Parts: sequence; structure tokens; C-alpha cells
Amino acid sequence: MSDVKKVVLAYSGGLDTSVIVKWLQETYNCEVVTFTADIGQGEEVAPARAKAEKLGVKEIYIEDLREEFARDYVFPMFRANTIYEGEYLLGTSIARPLIAKRLIEIANETGADAISHGATGKGNDQVRFELGAYALKPGVKVIAPWREWDLTSREKLMAYCEQHEIPVDFSSGKKKSPYSMDANLLHISYEGGILEDPWAEAEEDMWRWSVSPETAPDQPTYVELTFEKGDIVAIDGTAMKAHEVLEHLNKVGGDNGIGRLDIVENRYVGMKSRGCYETPGGTIMLRAHRAIESLTLDREEAHLKDELMPKYAEVIYNGYWWSPERRMLQAAIDETQKNVSGVVRMKLYKGNAIPVGRKSEQSLFDESIATFEDDAGAYDQKDAEGFIKLNALRLRIAAGKGRLQD
Amino acid sequence: MSDVKKVVLAYSGGLDTSVIVKWLQETYNCEVVTFTADIGQGEEVAPARAKAEKLGVKEIYIEDLREEFARDYVFPMFRANTIYEGEYLLGTSIARPLIAKRLIEIANETGADAISHGATGKGNDQVRFELGAYALKPGVKVIAPWREWDLTSREKLMAYCEQHEIPVDFSSGKKKSPYSMDANLLHISYEGGILEDPWAEAEEDMWRWSVSPETAPDQPTYVELTFEKGDIVAIDGTAMKAHEVLEHLNKVGGDNGIGRLDIVENRYVGMKSRGCYETPGGTIMLRAHRAIESLTLDREEAHLKDELMPKYAEVIYNGYWWSPERRMLQAAIDETQKNVSGVVRMKLYKGNAIPVGRKSEQSLFDESIATFEDDAGAYDQKDAEGFIKLNALRLRIAAGKGRLQD
Amino acid sequence: MSDVKKVVLAYSGGLDTSVIVKWLQETYNCEVVTFTADIGQGEEVAPARAKAEKLGVKEIYIEDLREEFARDYVFPMFRANTIYEGEYLLGTSIARPLIAKRLIEIANETGADAISHGATGKGNDQVRFELGAYALKPGVKVIAPWREWDLTSREKLMAYCEQHEIPVDFSSGKKKSPYSMDANLLHISYEGGILEDPWAEAEEDMWRWSVSPETAPDQPTYVELTFEKGDIVAIDGTAMKAHEVLEHLNKVGGDNGIGRLDIVENRYVGMKSRGCYETPGGTIMLRAHRAIESLTLDREEAHLKDELMPKYAEVIYNGYWWSPERRMLQAAIDETQKNVSGVVRMKLYKGNAIPVGRKSEQSLFDESIATFEDDAGAYDQKDAEGFIKLNALRLRIAAGKGRLQD
Amino acid sequence: MSDVKKVVLAYSGGLDTSVIVKWLQETYNCEVVTFTADIGQGEEVAPARAKAEKLGVKEIYIEDLREEFARDYVFPMFRANTIYEGEYLLGTSIARPLIAKRLIEIANETGADAISHGATGKGNDQVRFELGAYALKPGVKVIAPWREWDLTSREKLMAYCEQHEIPVDFSSGKKKSPYSMDANLLHISYEGGILEDPWAEAEEDMWRWSVSPETAPDQPTYVELTFEKGDIVAIDGTAMKAHEVLEHLNKVGGDNGIGRLDIVENRYVGMKSRGCYETPGGTIMLRAHRAIESLTLDREEAHLKDELMPKYAEVIYNGYWWSPERRMLQAAIDETQKNVSGVVRMKLYKGNAIPVGRKSEQSLFDESIATFEDDAGAYDQKDAEGFIKLNALRLRIAAGKGRLQD
Repeated sequence: MSDVKKVVLAYSGGLDTSVIVKWLQETYNCEVVTFTADIGQGEEVAPARAKAEKLGVKEIYIEDLREEFARDYVFPMFRANTIYEGEYLLGTSIARPLIAKRLIEIANETGADAISHGATGKGNDQVRFELGAYALKPGVKVIAPWREWDLTSREKLMAYCEQHEIPVDFSSGKKKSPYSMDANLLHISYEGGILEDPWAEAEEDMWRWSVSPETAPDQPTYVELTFEKGDIVAIDGTAMKAHEVLEHLNKVGGDNGIGRLDIVENRYVGMKSRGCYETPGGTIMLRAHRAIESLTLDREEAHLKDELMPKYAEVIYNGYWWSPERRMLQAAIDETQKNVSGVVRMKLYKGNAIPVGRKSEQSLFDESIATFEDDAGAYDQKDAEGFIKLNALRLRIAAGKGRLQD
Repeated sequence: MSDVKKVVLAYSGGLDTSVIVKWLQETYNCEVVTFTADIGQGEEVAPARAKAEKLGVKEIYIEDLREEFARDYVFPMFRANTIYEGEYLLGTSIARPLIAKRLIEIANETGADAISHGATGKGNDQVRFELGAYALKPGVKVIAPWREWDLTSREKLMAYCEQHEIPVDFSSGKKKSPYSMDANLLHISYEGGILEDPWAEAEEDMWRWSVSPETAPDQPTYVELTFEKGDIVAIDGTAMKAHEVLEHLNKVGGDNGIGRLDIVENRYVGMKSRGCYETPGGTIMLRAHRAIESLTLDREEAHLKDELMPKYAEVIYNGYWWSPERRMLQAAIDETQKNVSGVVRMKLYKGNAIPVGRKSEQSLFDESIATFEDDAGAYDQKDAEGFIKLNALRLRIAAGKGRLQD
Repeated sequence: MSDVKKVVLAYSGGLDTSVIVKWLQETYNCEVVTFTADIGQGEEVAPARAKAEKLGVKEIYIEDLREEFARDYVFPMFRANTIYEGEYLLGTSIARPLIAKRLIEIANETGADAISHGATGKGNDQVRFELGAYALKPGVKVIAPWREWDLTSREKLMAYCEQHEIPVDFSSGKKKSPYSMDANLLHISYEGGILEDPWAEAEEDMWRWSVSPETAPDQPTYVELTFEKGDIVAIDGTAMKAHEVLEHLNKVGGDNGIGRLDIVENRYVGMKSRGCYETPGGTIMLRAHRAIESLTLDREEAHLKDELMPKYAEVIYNGYWWSPERRMLQAAIDETQKNVSGVVRMKLYKGNAIPVGRKSEQSLFDESIATFEDDAGAYDQKDAEGFIKLNALRLRIAAGKGRLQD
Repeated sequence: MSDVKKVVLAYSGGLDTSVIVKWLQETYNCEVVTFTADIGQGEEVAPARAKAEKLGVKEIYIEDLREEFARDYVFPMFRANTIYEGEYLLGTSIARPLIAKRLIEIANETGADAISHGATGKGNDQVRFELGAYALKPGVKVIAPWREWDLTSREKLMAYCEQHEIPVDFSSGKKKSPYSMDANLLHISYEGGILEDPWAEAEEDMWRWSVSPETAPDQPTYVELTFEKGDIVAIDGTAMKAHEVLEHLNKVGGDNGIGRLDIVENRYVGMKSRGCYETPGGTIMLRAHRAIESLTLDREEAHLKDELMPKYAEVIYNGYWWSPERRMLQAAIDETQKNVSGVVRMKLYKGNAIPVGRKSEQSLFDESIATFEDDAGAYDQKDAEGFIKLNALRLRIAAGKGRLQD
């Protein structure tokens, strides 16, 4: 353990990662660089400086990554209508590659030979941090304290704090949440506590970002979302940057009870876990994006996107953002988004995010062909006979062999 | 046209198919057999007998196919969590194969050499009817009047009725809907009218089966759905047949404003069309089925199902129920459903259908492993290091070549 | 038929398309522009000018498209290791998009409102020509004489020639082949004749480009193929353009009895057909490309390519080169080829094209890790335990429920 | 290490696994049960008894599993035309699940609580053995000596033998091969030695089962293979069991220089490795199976099989035979094989295995439709126009927006 000289730690400023600072200094006898990022988790990051200083940290990085996070990670992912296992919008998964990238960049800047994080050995996040780190700096050393140390209970952790004079008061006053939570611009997640029983309904007071559908306003809210090449660039006519879009939609979505999710998911490390998520803005974005695509994408590229999406979601969920396969899929997805521009009108009401109108200069919807009225020859119905006959040919031949009737 | 002797017609009893009876008799100088089925469209089928008799039809088939429809078509489809283009639950598509099958069986029973239907030359239904017919009786003759005749406007149709003494009064009293509609146990669909403008919001008085979320009750309704091998077999502890399940869930879903959908979709014949759908029961079933699968399916079979689903949906949407590829996919899907048994608790509230609890004897959720508390050695966190290291190996080698950092 | 003013015809200079020139002039009373291309079919194209002039054609296009064909169509397709139905290298399919493109460009240049071709109504080529034409000029009129006229037998065709003074002597001297053949730089194809019986072995004297394995040299030939970004750019150290690569490999491949294929394939129009193909250069390219990819592609992108390939092959076979889905797939494929550079050494011997060596600056093969000898710690075998344990976790949980043992 | 009481070892009778017997007895102070199987590796298994006895083993299992191996593993895999990474026929991969299954069954019979094997920590085989074991007996303890012990060089191994009086003479006389080899009914594999340089051509004297194409007979051999439901059941009219088929085809294939393969492959543990394989029978079977499928499979199920195959190959390669996803895929594959019956005539000549004829009662090849001659109305060429027009519709609409021309 003596060969680590300097380690960059993803530091939240909370108790656990404060303990890790001290533990790294002690165990590895190395210098610790802290990195604290605002990715929209809704907590002040500035106080992390004083805390880190108190722990003897000399190189302290505190950064606002909200725009980069939304623009370069969340938005590209939403171009694919990405959903993991039919439900989950990947709010935690998509934040990890950016953290991993900054950890490595800071390691390169500060001459550190290792990185560290506060994720446990049971979850997906350790995988996402570490795969990202190895992909960006193959020789880096990764230290995952939760897999190494023996501070495996809250009591031991507290004893360690006392022994090492780590102030635990910074969490006093706040009642400790019974849930393990994680937040960023895209979502907030809850695990643990009573959620470990998948039959138990989540308690109302767990949710932080959204009101319940029951307490949401009795009048719907309408928003118009303008897309350019697959990304939202304006809301109700006002141009916005990516992170502003997310912030705006989180607010209006949360106010209308939108984006709560309660699922059992399959972790990459092989177990099922139960999680609750609030993704107000993302939930609106997903349905709106599908709506603008419904008008502007060709059928076959749309279907191919749908076939590739589960794989793309799995790649991101499992932590392979920085991989050749993610790039390959992204190239295909981005190729389809060139014409995904236009406006979608969304109705938000008590948990519902409903597309009620969509228009686009790039629309492939041709009213003159689709109409139930006279189409003036735009479409020759007689063509349908040949179309059906040739599509049926292989079936008729098979049926002639008695194959399809049983 | 003289070579058709007897034709079996999918006869709704409505004006259009009544005209078709007469037109077939006249144009082909052939006998017409009518086939009218109750597949849950919510209209009496019995009156079709008198109407057909009045048109000189001698062989009249009127059948209640609700149970068969729900059990052998809707339920197998839902095992795959089937959605077309991310939104559409295939309510119309799934009814056609059964109608096609009965048309052919009746043709075989009555010695008919042709079948006929009232679908237009622009839509998907003609394809679905005819592919099914050809697959089940490869030599059958198909007559699609809408592709052949010149009754291309309502005026011409009315003139034809007058000329041939076809009573149009049976639709009097009812105001003619501005929408083209189709209904069965799974859904009701709306097309045409103002919907031909995808920017226009559907009018509230269009919807027939559901109240709006706004007018739905202010208190949620909870239902418990019992699954066996992927199918719902009981609601709130009461055993039900497949069609009873659908009827029950349509009622309770519609009462809570659930299942409305407003989309632009890609038809198989090459155009986009805008449609609105109400699928109250199906919407509940889909989310509940995913919830019970989340507990009982292995991760890799679940992911593979998700990858295959868009193809399966396309196969059904395009009319290939009676095909080798649908059977092949169904075999894979059904193989996974052996253990998809258990109970899901759903909260229904103003348009929302939310799984809030799930339990199963077949559950693969292992609380002793997933827990944030001490797991007594059920999972060794140190295993994660090797897992990550070997999964990262190919990335590290690629990164060593400078591939992933740019 | 009177509304066609000028039609561009894909004109081979052969009897059939000469008849078509006359038939178009007569039937549509329109001007005919002929387009004859050298795409490596191995026949002189220059004589087409005199023939066309004799038929009264005023605008005559004769072009050498070999380089464009190889570079922009064949090579991009080979980047995907494209094979249709496990066997067919798509030699005919890949030539059609280029012909369609030039037909449309010439139509635009000459102010023609229609295009025409000599493909029959049973084959894939009509589809490929016409889908390409419609995609590039949506309002174009397509005339497919074989689907329209009544010259359905060779006798009628001959009678038509005599009647219209079309010289048939240009095929005299040559014995008429019993096969329907088509050739370009990538392959030559044979259909019809005794091949219509799939049990019958093709006759030795049918093959034109290759010697039989039996008569090929008793000594192997070795070639070294240099790849850059997925394409062959040099052979045995000599830089070559795409079409020169194909010509060279066709020669050396054919001399060694390589590239014969005898299959039954599924046409897009719904029937099976039996075809024989000679693709000497393509057969060598495919195996060499796989070999250089085996060294330079990451595992997951390689596997994803393999999963997408059948779809990509189908898209091209069915005639959708000029489509959004082909572009989408191409974007994914091309993204992977950035590092597919290096040299493959191939042994050619009596029908066998065997990679016997491969090397690359971009190689991801790491001898220090893979070695059976001491690897000096490059790979920690103990990591494998955690890797296996976590990958097994879901299986162990499922097995605990009795799922996998039966 | 004291908690293991009895371990079942996959015992070849060779030096390495003999050392393992002793090492297990010493290190774990436990009883060792040996299991030696004849899966067609071509070496006597009977001598393993005496060797095991000499090592103090009391429970000795020696079994002939050739029929089960061919029938229940190799043949089902070949129904999918399974190839890993475009080249490899999975000869090693497919043998492991059967060994794992028998190890666990014997553990259950003998009351053993652990299994062990002689695979190294760098390869795929450890994964395959152990995933299988965990899937079939989730609580089993697995001991992988190569990952644990310090006998990491041949010298240390020899020293251990001397020290423990393990007779090494049983390999004397035979020159130690410079390659790591593995054989069974399906193939023999070679790794290591000069093969660790992917540019180096394999030496002729490495190959054991096949003559070189150069030294194979100058006259071709023809065989007729009879398929039933996807499996070969007779050769040249003589009914054979699965393992007899493989033995016969290995002989005739090897005699004709068929089935040599030289590739670089991607291991599941993350590295590339270079391997050479001889799979004479499998190579013939694969091409013959494709040939009979070309006649008897519907197009769409054939294409779907091709799309699923890479995934199925990966599942088997990675060791997940005993998994829900393999079963799911197998169900789909087997569903398609019901009609894959008939006869294929293969020409074998100097490395080439060429289908030259195929016939079947279940053939979907319809000569009356496919013919270039007059088809008497079996196919109406005019249908093609409507078929093309509607397939082109989406392209024409997109082209109208200027999308496809650039």
C-alpha cells in the first residue's frame, strides 16, 4: 500500500467521504486531492472547501459542471429515448462518466497516481467510476475504501470519527434520512430502508423533488418545447442552455407531480435491488422527444433505434460510457437526429406528461396522403394489392406445405 | 370477376359493410356469407342477423369471441410487454388475426372461395386481414371493395344505398362521429377529422371509454393483480378469465382516466398517421406485467426480451401474426414466462397507473444480498474488484493505444 | 402513357435493352436517353454508342464507373463483413444503387421525367433500381417494360426485333448462354437453366472467372493486404485504388479457384431462387478484413457489428442503399473502422483463402497478457475469481429457486 | 481451507491434474473424487483409473459421454449455425457445460461439497466450468488450483512431482507439445508457442486431425447428409447416432484437409488470444445445415436466426449454457427446426466443403414460381409495381424533404 503517492477523491463534503480522506491519508500515507462537483444535486458545494482544508487537504477542486453534464451526457443519452428495463431513466448512471473523467483529468494535472470514491462494493457506481477511470488512464490505481476497510457499520464509522477528530456535527440538526440517496440535475434516487421490501409502498414523505399527484394543481400546465437536432433548445419560446432546460422542467414537472418511479432493477453486479426515483424533467423530455421523432424520423430508422436502445441503455447502466461500443451506438443515434427539429406541446397534469401537439418543418407526416378525405391521387390504393400479394407470397408457399394452419 | 362463387365477409352490421354485401352480390354475382363477431367492441352484434337477412344473406355467422380474443391473442402479446414505436399498445393490430382466422374457417365450412373485408386501401388493416387469410388458406381469393369500387365519397355511398334500397336509417339518431373509430376489448381508436392536424389537441368529447384525468375521482383506487406464467388470472383475489380481466380493468382504468394516448405512427403501407387510442386495461396490464417480471425474471432474459420486443411489435403491427417469425419469437417469449407468477399492487389515480408493491414465490429479489445492512457474508464485496478489473481489461488495453481518451 | 416525354434507360447494349429502346419510343412516343456504364462487367461498353445511335438515340451516356463503384459502394459494404443469409456477398445488390443514382442524375441533366431498366418483375433488381430512383427523385416516373409488355417469350422478342429491324446479329457467333448472368467488378452471377433444380450440381463449364479448385495450381500463392481504416489500400506493398484492388484480387483469386458459391436464397419479392456466384476478390477481402479486425477491433464493438450485420445485409439486398436506415448503420460501422489498419497475409490455394498472419500498429493483442509463459504480473489471475463469482450471482440466485437444474 | 471435505475433480489422467489431486489432498486435507470422461478427445480414458488409484483416490468415475455430448450439446448448437466472431465453431466452449453438469451430479451422488478443475486463471474454461457449477448447485465450493497455488512454472511443477512421488514418466517418450491443446469430438485446439505471434504462420506439423489441403487426395469425395429437424441422422443413407455422425465426418473431413482455422479471438476475461483449431466434421455440418435451411426455412425466420446467432454464440462462448438466456434462445431456434429436413450433397476437396445439391419434402423452393420460363400465372409480375411503390412511399416523402439526395 506504500506505492500510492497522491490520490484524487470524489469528495461530497459529507461524513462518509470525509472519513475516506482521513483513512486514505492514514492507510496509504499519501496526499489526498479532493474533487467536489456541482452537477445539480441541489446542495451547496462551496462548504466542501473548508471541510477539506480542515482535513489537511492542500489541493481542492470545486467545480460547477451542470452545463457540461446536461449538454454532453444527459442530452446525448435522451436522443436515444433511453430507458433501462422499461422504466428507469438512468439518472445515476449518466452522472458517473463525467465524474470519472474529471477525476482522471485532475489526477493528470496534479500528478496523482490513484483515484478513490465512496461507492460501496455492492452497487453499480463503483463499476461506473472504475471502468471510466481505467478507460481514460489505463495504469491508474483505484482505491475503493468500502471494499477494503473494516468500518462496515455506522458505529465503527462514528468511532473512527471520534478517534480522528473528524467533526460529525456538520450533519447534526438534519435528521439522518433512512434512505440512501443520490441526486443530480436529472434525478434523485432512494434506496434502502423500507424499500428493501418490494411489496411495501414508498412513504409519501420520502419524495423530495415532486409533490404527489394528489396535491398537484387542479389545473394543467402547458409547455412548448423546441427541439433542434434532437435536443431541447427552447421552452415556451425562450432559448435555454441544456442545464437550464433540465432545471426548468424539473421545476414545472415536480410541481405537477411528474416523474416518480418505483421499481425493482437488475444491477450489473448480479443482484436485484429496489429503488425509487424522481425524474420530473427527464420524464417530460422523453415523451416530448418521442413525439417530435414521431413526426420527423423515418419509420425504419425509428424502428432500428428502438431495437438498439435496450443495448445502449445497458451499456450506460453498466458503466461503459467510455467505450468503443457506446461510441458506435452514439454514432448511429446521432446520425438520425439531424432532422429531429420542431415543437412539441406538452400538457402536464397530476403526474401525467402528455404530448398534445407536435409540428416541424422537417415533418414527414403528409396530410395529403394520410387523409380520410379525397387525396387527389397522392396515393393509389390499388398499389396496396401488389404490396400485400408479394408480402404474402412466402406465407402462401409455406401454407401450401401445411405449416401455418396448425 | 365471374369466378367467385361464395364470399365470406367480415360484417359489422354498419352501413359500409352493408353496402359491401350488396356490392359483392352485384359485382361478383356471388353468394355472400356474413361473419359478425363480438370481440368486445361494446355494440350489440345480434342485430346484424336481421340486417344481413334483409340483404338476402342466407349463411349468417354471429359469434362471441371475447374470451378467445383475450386469451389467445391479447394475453400472449402482453407477455412481451409489446409496444409499437414506444407508445402504441397494438389494440387494433391484435384483433385482426382472429378475424382472419375465423373468416378462413367459415370459408372452409361453407365452401366459400373468397373472403372480403371493409378496410380501406390506405390502412394497415387490409394488410393484416389479407396476410392472415393467405397464410391460412393460400389459394383464397380476397376482395377488398375499397380498393376496387368507385364509391369513394360518402355522397356516392349514400346514392348507392338509395339506389339499392339499403336502409341507412339504422345509423340515424346517432350523430355521425367525425372520427374513424374501431373498438374491441383492448382499445378504441380514433383517426381522421381534426386529428389530421398533428398540432391540434384532441377534443375532450371525442373520448368514449375514459373520463379525463381532471374529472376522475380525487381518491386513488388500488387493485391487486395476480399473475400466473405471465398472465393475469385474478383481480383482488377473485379468479377471472382473460376477457373478464380486460373488462374489469377497462372499467376501473377508464373510471380513473387511464389509458388515453395521442400519437403519430408509421403505417406499414408507408405513411405516417395520427391516431388517438384509449386502452385503460391494457395500460394497467403492461405496467403490472413489467413489475412482476422485475421480480421474477432473470436479468439477461429480461434484457433479451427488451431487445426482441420492437421486432415482435412490428411483426404484429404489420399483420404477420400467422407467420413463422411470430411463432419463433413467441416460443422465446413464452419460455421466459414460466416463473412470472405473483401479485402486483397497482395504484390508479387520475391517469396514472403506478405499481406500488410486488411479491412472488418466484422472486429473485434477495433481500439478504441486496441489503444496505450487514448481509452476514451473503455477498463478498471484494469479488467486485476482480469483476471490475477483468471487465476493464479490454478498455485498458484500448486506452493504452490512445483510443478512448479523445 | 402519353405524359412521358423523355426517359433515361439503363442500356447494356445487349438485345433485351435494345428492344426496350424501341419499345419505349413506340409505346410512350418519347425520347430515349441511354446510359451505359463500365462497372467491371468485363465487356466493352464503347460499342453501345453505335448501337444506340442506330436505334435513333440522341443523348448517349457511356461512363467508366469502376473506381466509384469499388470505392463508394463495395468497400463501405465490406467494412461490415456483409454476407446475406450466411453465404452471399451481395455482388449484384451493391451495383444497383450506383446505377440508380446515375440514371437520376442523367434524368436531371437531360430534363427527363422517367427512367427505365431491363429487370424482370420477379427479381430483386427492379426493386433496387426503383427504390433508388424514388429515393433520389421522388416524382420520377419509372417504366419497367418486363412488367408491362407482352414480349414474354424469346420467340415474341425475336419477332419484335424482326418487325422493328433491330439487329440481333450482335449476339450471333456467341452461343447463347443457358443462364441468366450478371457481372460487375465484385462478381458474376448465374441463374436459370439447370440451376432451377437445387439438387443439380452446377456444370463446370458454367463458371467464367475462376478455374476449378481441381485445376488450380498445386502451389499456394501468398498475398499481403494492407488495410487503412477498414479498406485495402495496398497489395504486396503496392498502393492501389479500390477498383485496382478488386481487379487484382479477382485475378489472383480466380486463378486459385477461389470464390465460387452455389446457394438458394430468399428474394425480397417473396420467392426462393437458386443462384451461383463467382466472387474471387470479395471472398479474399472478407476473410482478410475479419482477420485485421480480429487484431484491431475491441471485443464489444466487434460483437455489435456482428449483430447488426444481418440487418445491414438485408437492407442492401432489398434495395435500400439510399435510405435513412442504411446511413444509420453505416455511421455505426464506419465509427468502428478508424483503427482497422494493418497487414494481413493470405494463403490462396485451390479454393481456400486462408489468413495465416496479421499485424498492426493498432493491434489490441497484448502478448504480455495473453502468454502462457510468465506474464510478470500483467494479469492477476486472482481477479478471475471475483469476475466469475459476480457473473454467477444471478445464476446462483435463480438456481436457489430450482430454475436451472431441470 | 479446512471446510472442504470432499472435492470432485475433472481429471484427465495427465500430469497437471495428477498434481492437482495431490495438491487438493494436501492443501485442503480432503478426499478427492476423480471424474474422467471420454468426449471424443481421442485418448484412452481407462488408464486414468490406475493413475487415480495410485494417488489414493477411492471414488473414481470414468465415463463415455460421446453420444450425450454430440446429441445434447453439439447438435443443438449447430441448429443455430453458431459461429463466434465470424470464424470459431466453439469446439471447446460446448464441451464444458457437460463436464460441469457431470461434476455436480457426481458431487451430489458422492456427497462432495466442492468441485475442482485444471483450467488456468487467464482462460475462458475456468469461467465455463464454474458458471455451470454455480448454476447447477448454487452453494458449491469451487477450487481452481491454478489461481491459488504457486506452482506457476513447469520447473516448480516438476519439483512438486518429485517431492510427492507423482510419476511423471507417463508422459515420457512422448515429446511434450509446444502447444496447449484441447480435444473432443468436435475439435482440437492449439494455443501458445509460436502462435503467440499472430503474424507467424502455424507450422504444418502442429495439426493432428487433418492432412493439409496440399496433401489431400486429388479427387473429391462426395457425401450425402440426411437431416431431420435440423440434425443429421444419416450419412450416405446409413442411419447414425449423433456422435457417429461427428466421428464419420471428422474422418472424411480430415482426410480432405477440411476444417483448419487460424484466428485471433476475444476471450471473456478481456484479452485477445490466438488459437488454431481443427473442426473437420463441424465445418461440413455447418455448411450443410445452412444448405438445408436455405431450402426449408422461411425467409423471415432465417433472417431472425441470423440476427440472434451472434448473441447465442457469445452466450455459449462465455460459459452461459446453463442460463435462462440460452434456454430462451434455444426455444426460438428449435421452433424453427421442425421442417429442416432433407438431404444435402456435399463435395469435399482439398480444404473445401461445398454444398452442390439439396432436396427436401419440406422445400419452400417453388420452381413454378421462380422459373425464368413461363410460370403459367403462378406469379403476377404486375404485383411488383404496387409492392415497390408502397415500399418506396416513405423514401419518396423523405426525399421530398431533401433528405436522401445528399
